[in-house]
Amino acid sequence: MRFEVRTTRREEFVDITRAVADAVAEALSGLARTSSGAEANGAVLVFSHHTTAGITINENVDPDVCRDLVDGLARIAPCEARWRHCEGNSDGHLKTSLVGPSVLVPLESGRMVLGTWQGIYLAEFDGPRTRRVEVRVLPGLG
Amino acid sequence: MRFEVRTTRREEFVDITRAVADAVAEALSGLARTSSGAEANGAVLVFSHHTTAGITINENVDPDVCRDLVDGLARIAPCEARWRHCEGNSDGHLKTSLVGPSVLVPLESGRMVLGTWQGIYLAEFDGPRTRRVEVRVLPGLG
Amino acid sequence: MRFEVRTTRREEFVDITRAVADAVAEALSGLARTSSGAEANGAVLVFSHHTTAGITINENVDPDVCRDLVDGLARIAPCEARWRHCEGNSDGHLKTSLVGPSVLVPLESGRMVLGTWQGIYLAEFDGPRTRRVEVRVLPGLG
Repeated sequence: MRFEVRTTRREEFVDITRAVADAVAEALSGLARTSSGAEANGAVLVFSHHTTAGITINENVDPDVCRDLVDGLARIAPCEARWRHCEGNSDGHLKTSLVGPSVLVPLESGRMVLGTWQGIYLAEFDGPRTRRVEVRVLPGLG
Repeated sequence: MRFEVRTTRREEFVDITRAVADAVAEALSGLARTSSGAEANGAVLVFSHHTTAGITINENVDPDVCRDLVDGLARIAPCEARWRHCEGNSDGHLKTSLVGPSVLVPLESGRMVLGTWQGIYLAEFDGPRTRRVEVRVLPGLG
Repeated sequence: MRFEVRTTRREEFVDITRAVADAVAEALSGLARTSSGAEANGAVLVFSHHTTAGITINENVDPDVCRDLVDGLARIAPCEARWRHCEGNSDGHLKTSLVGPSVLVPLESGRMVLGTWQGIYLAEFDGPRTRRVEVRVLPGLG
């Protein structure tokens, strides 16, 4: 299962929680009746195909949090630092390894088990671009 | 499977390795005899429900390592930096996206395959609080 | 499934994509004919057993990107900062929690679904050493 995200700025966090939930529902809807149901109680992998865009989980209520994350990461990995790579996006490569290329979210009865304030974000670090996000439902116990 | 962790400071790393091992044992104990045993050779997901507390793996011998991690993260994301979010915990939100909300640890014969020095930690960045940790055992091969 | 990586410098990113692909092929080759095939469409966990070496995904074309990652991480967690831990590798412990100890890569028909520019790297932060990498194939849907 995969979907695309169109970003609109060089650096921004785009909430993809709903798109991931839809992909999970679609994956589970395809299950044979004979399934043990373990898929519905496993986890969902959300993976970015890109080296200047990651996936992270953070607060989904106050949009200032995501702006603070963008600003804080810019202080950690400044665009204007000394970099060898000539494409002007080395800061984005570093930020991607810092937040990571994916998240893995537990499922319970087919629903993502997210905390009250948790949303799933595509973290764009070299946009605007169209990004591809891959989703896998992994069966589990617990 | 889930458990709670009571933290005692604003920022600290709490070793939860034993609690995770107990949750894995409990999940596996519930397996039907007919199981293929793949669950015992898969991986365990350890997931934080929070946006100012993450999960990480680091050294479990010298407690100075965890203190250095707290101090090093405070230099990267200073509490007193310029932040928009008004709750005074934006540094904690950033630190959580940096260390990440979860870890996934390989299992072998039902036991976590951790290196000699590896422990699993709840990384508290806005405590003291009671935190919830979710655990899933995912079957696997390898 | 596990393999070793011999690093040659204190800090470097070593491309292990091929070794991971080989481990996935080996794990899948052992499958019974009766398998549902879910393993071939799940995900692969790549896990470091170490607290001063992580696993990350980044650009596999221009080697300057990995050098920029090493330099950028050294600016974030300087070796010469004030640290309590006396072994002179606290920067490496922090960098390992920042990039993380593992990655989880989606599989499709038994092949890793990596973006055009994505490679899997062992991130060495206290070498040169021989490092152990653990691999697990987790079945899935999607």
